[in-house]
Amino acid sequence: MEVLKNNFEAILPLIEKAVEEADYIAIDTELSGLGKQKLDVLDDSQERYTKLKEAATEHLIVQFGVCTFKWDAESKSYIAKPFNAYVYPRASSRKLEIDRHFTVQSACFEFLAENKFDFNKWVSQGIPYLTHEEEAEARRRIGGLRRDEVAVEETHREFVENTIKTVNDWLQNSSEKVVSVACPTSFHRLLVHQEVKKRFGAALGTDGKYGAVEVSKLTEEERKYRSVGKEAQLEMELNQLIGFRKVIDAISQSGSIVLGHNMFLDLCHTFQQFNRTLPADLEEFRREVHDLFPQIIDTKHLARSNPKLSRLQDTGLGAVMEEVQKYPFVSPKISIDPDCGTYETAFHEAGYDAYATGVAFLRMTAYAEGCGDTEISKESPTVTAVMNKLNLMKSDVPTLNLVGPQETRDRSHVFRVYGFSDGVKTKDVMEEFQPRAGDISIQWINLSSCFITLKDPGKAEEFNKSLDGEDKKFHYEIESWEAYKAKNGQGSGLSSSTSQQATPKRKLGLESPVGKSESSHKRTKTDQSSDGEKAECAVM
Amino acid sequence: MEVLKNNFEAILPLIEKAVEEADYIAIDTELSGLGKQKLDVLDDSQERYTKLKEAATEHLIVQFGVCTFKWDAESKSYIAKPFNAYVYPRASSRKLEIDRHFTVQSACFEFLAENKFDFNKWVSQGIPYLTHEEEAEARRRIGGLRRDEVAVEETHREFVENTIKTVNDWLQNSSEKVVSVACPTSFHRLLVHQEVKKRFGAALGTDGKYGAVEVSKLTEEERKYRSVGKEAQLEMELNQLIGFRKVIDAISQSGSIVLGHNMFLDLCHTFQQFNRTLPADLEEFRREVHDLFPQIIDTKHLARSNPKLSRLQDTGLGAVMEEVQKYPFVSPKISIDPDCGTYETAFHEAGYDAYATGVAFLRMTAYAEGCGDTEISKESPTVTAVMNKLNLMKSDVPTLNLVGPQETRDRSHVFRVYGFSDGVKTKDVMEEFQPRAGDISIQWINLSSCFITLKDPGKAEEFNKSLDGEDKKFHYEIESWEAYKAKNGQGSGLSSSTSQQATPKRKLGLESPVGKSESSHKRTKTDQSSDGEKAECAVM
Repeated sequence: MEVLKNNFEAILPLIEKAVEEADYIAIDTELSGLGKQKLDVLDDSQERYTKLKEAATEHLIVQFGVCTFKWDAESKSYIAKPFNAYVYPRASSRKLEIDRHFTVQSACFEFLAENKFDFNKWVSQGIPYLTHEEEAEARRRIGGLRRDEVAVEETHREFVENTIKTVNDWLQNSSEKVVSVACPTSFHRLLVHQEVKKRFGAALGTDGKYGAVEVSKLTEEERKYRSVGKEAQLEMELNQLIGFRKVIDAISQSGSIVLGHNMFLDLCHTFQQFNRTLPADLEEFRREVHDLFPQIIDTKHLARSNPKLSRLQDTGLGAVMEEVQKYPFVSPKISIDPDCGTYETAFHEAGYDAYATGVAFLRMTAYAEGCGDTEISKESPTVTAVMNKLNLMKSDVPTLNLVGPQETRDRSHVFRVYGFSDGVKTKDVMEEFQPRAGDISIQWINLSSCFITLKDPGKAEEFNKSLDGEDKKFHYEIESWEAYKAKNGQGSGLSSSTSQQATPKRKLGLESPVGKSESSHKRTKTDQSSDGEKAECAVM
Repeated sequence: MEVLKNNFEAILPLIEKAVEEADYIAIDTELSGLGKQKLDVLDDSQERYTKLKEAATEHLIVQFGVCTFKWDAESKSYIAKPFNAYVYPRASSRKLEIDRHFTVQSACFEFLAENKFDFNKWVSQGIPYLTHEEEAEARRRIGGLRRDEVAVEETHREFVENTIKTVNDWLQNSSEKVVSVACPTSFHRLLVHQEVKKRFGAALGTDGKYGAVEVSKLTEEERKYRSVGKEAQLEMELNQLIGFRKVIDAISQSGSIVLGHNMFLDLCHTFQQFNRTLPADLEEFRREVHDLFPQIIDTKHLARSNPKLSRLQDTGLGAVMEEVQKYPFVSPKISIDPDCGTYETAFHEAGYDAYATGVAFLRMTAYAEGCGDTEISKESPTVTAVMNKLNLMKSDVPTLNLVGPQETRDRSHVFRVYGFSDGVKTKDVMEEFQPRAGDISIQWINLSSCFITLKDPGKAEEFNKSLDGEDKKFHYEIESWEAYKAKNGQGSGLSSSTSQQATPKRKLGLESPVGKSESSHKRTKTDQSSDGEKAECAVM
């Protein structure tokens, strides 16, 4: 079901009811961009979080998908209720002073356009939203609007009297809807607003213009609206502006299991856009996300980690959705609630992707558990094994645990090589180290250094020994990952890295002020959200 | 005439011919946002330029209007050719690595939506563009793509042989269009690309995937396309990407008089988006803009400065356009070239606003010169008086001169008042100074200081003397503008300021990390472009 500004108030109770009753709530987002920082396989968890946080701070969710799933004992099937919401950072009226600046990555908008995203609907009909912080700030502003009356000093008495006379003359003798009072300064404008209101009450309206205030006769409707009182009006407006956050609040209050596919970035965005500013510290983020959504399952992690699902070679959402609709993934039955309409395949529409995520979860879990057409137990090992673990893509650590200790990786087979002479290329590094280390992967740090990772960790010790020799083909120093980290601490890892076949020379060009970095270009929507591993295919 | 990606190549010769022949070329832009910095009446010219430069660096032109005007002796009228172009910062294919991040101000998109801007057309059909710098960078990249062949070392010989065997088997025995070669590292992928190309030439294509390379049979068309050679393909793509800049290049080469209404910001954007990165220094900007467009007329400056046009009270484009279609502005006759279609009134469509700007220019000038239905002389005093002077809005200096010395303003009637005790408000400052200085305007610098400007400069000396007294209602120090500037130098003026009726307390709130600054909210599209002075009315 499509949810827009115009129908949001009407549909909200349906969503809230669906969320409250749900066994599982799948979510998905479409974004205005993916950030400029390249994900690196050697990122530690804080580094990775910092990159995603930056992306979530710059860019916006432009469409939010929610799909609830509830077991129906009678039909022995899950009933899905998908909702697809356009969300737009709507500006407020002037008094509340809410307006936002956000960043668009041009390739992402092109990608959305190819996937039938309706930008006109987004701007005109996107549901507004405020975080809790923005709401509190707006409330402070409403409070601050109570203003003392300005005294009319001797110097301005004549001006005020003339103004009132002008307005009275116009009221009695003119059929014009508006009369303009010229004001040499903004203080004069303030006086006109104040004195007209004082003398004529709700019968007349005043609008500040450049160099003047326009006094106008109000229609009955306008009079009624103004008579509500400025503060009450602003409260009403504020309530509307909170908008889509009410859905997030409802999901949070339900405490239900929230599903997402490769959802770390979606989660950062959801937190930043509808809850509050993302904290800098990963530990704080873990705590706060756990408060917000106490049960989270990343279906990509499920697909990748459960040994019974090893037949799923491609764990992108599209591929998984295709697989789970075929043998042997036949159960459970899932049907869409007729009130929510029907759904054609529509990948990269947030509502559909949320629906697909839920279907993938139910079918994978039922298969792994051998449930057949019965209800899936939320305490089943398949479910509990993946609870509160986010998939980490392009990382040698598979997950970020939202609860409990973090996973780490043995990196005794990673080395930093540095101090290259000019012009050393990937090919040279390969030729220097592969004979001793076997297959390696290379990540450039800058023109004169890179990390090399041995494909076979077992060769690390032998490789370490072989480094004593002196027959280097070019100049370099080498140190272990451990030694490097001890020197540089957490968070000082790669600032940029490159793929293996690229030469460092080219890479430097990419970071010039004119050219955009490779990462911002290569990574695409599919990269960080639904299609996960299919990173490099979408922009073209 | 609407100009889109699909018809740009076809229409470009028409535009180029119209531009080459034109007597006058009017331009207008629609923008993704207006920047966060508030314009201040006391900005010096470098400060003002720096603010507009920042806005033009963050935000984008999303629609560019060009309307040429040419005198037709036969019909004794000017023939207008309006073109309205959607422009979008299109991403390139991967090799050219062009992708852009840009900032949107949410209220501006809402404003555009209200004025029928089609965002779907913008993303899908916006014409691409590159600056000269971006083009040069892309050319460097194309040059850098020539790569040495990688040697196949002993360790990879078996892999390469197996790959070739797999491909051969598939070619001979399979009807599948694609065969996938698993690749443990990206170096293996590189080898597959290289070796398949070497052995099978243009007959087969290779596409890198995650963990594999897909080798595919090509259709004749694909073969033809690939046989052109990678470099030539990229050159073709690059030529398309240059796109709309060709129009700007044509306008520049024509050397014609370029018209804009309140065009300083439009000019900054046009320079930044289609020419090159804006320089930091105003003097350099003046030189370079003069190189780009040697004859510029700002029609708002014309409307404001020419004494014969004093009947034009409201110099916003909409108001001027309305006036010049009525008596006494009856000449010259202006008709739209039938090839460019007809035009309904459509303010805030860039093509229409450019047309309106030209109409306003011709009618104002003809009226001021008393031309009647004859050709307007480009050497007439009305024209030469305003040549290369940009209107400065919200400024006590009326223009920025693009050529010759800059105008300055006597500010002996401006004072900085500072060192306030807590809680001093506008009202207090008014009450303290108005009895001695007459009407003043106040611009807050921060909670404890502001500038006050005497409405009557003649009172400055007397006011200065009156400051010796000691009966202050609250604590403050006071100094002249000159003394302040001597201490703080150029460019250190107001970083933010507020309108007179606001209290400093409220203003501080506006600058909190959550709330957006007042300036970004209050200023709107109409503020900085076509409607000029009508600053505060549009967001609501």
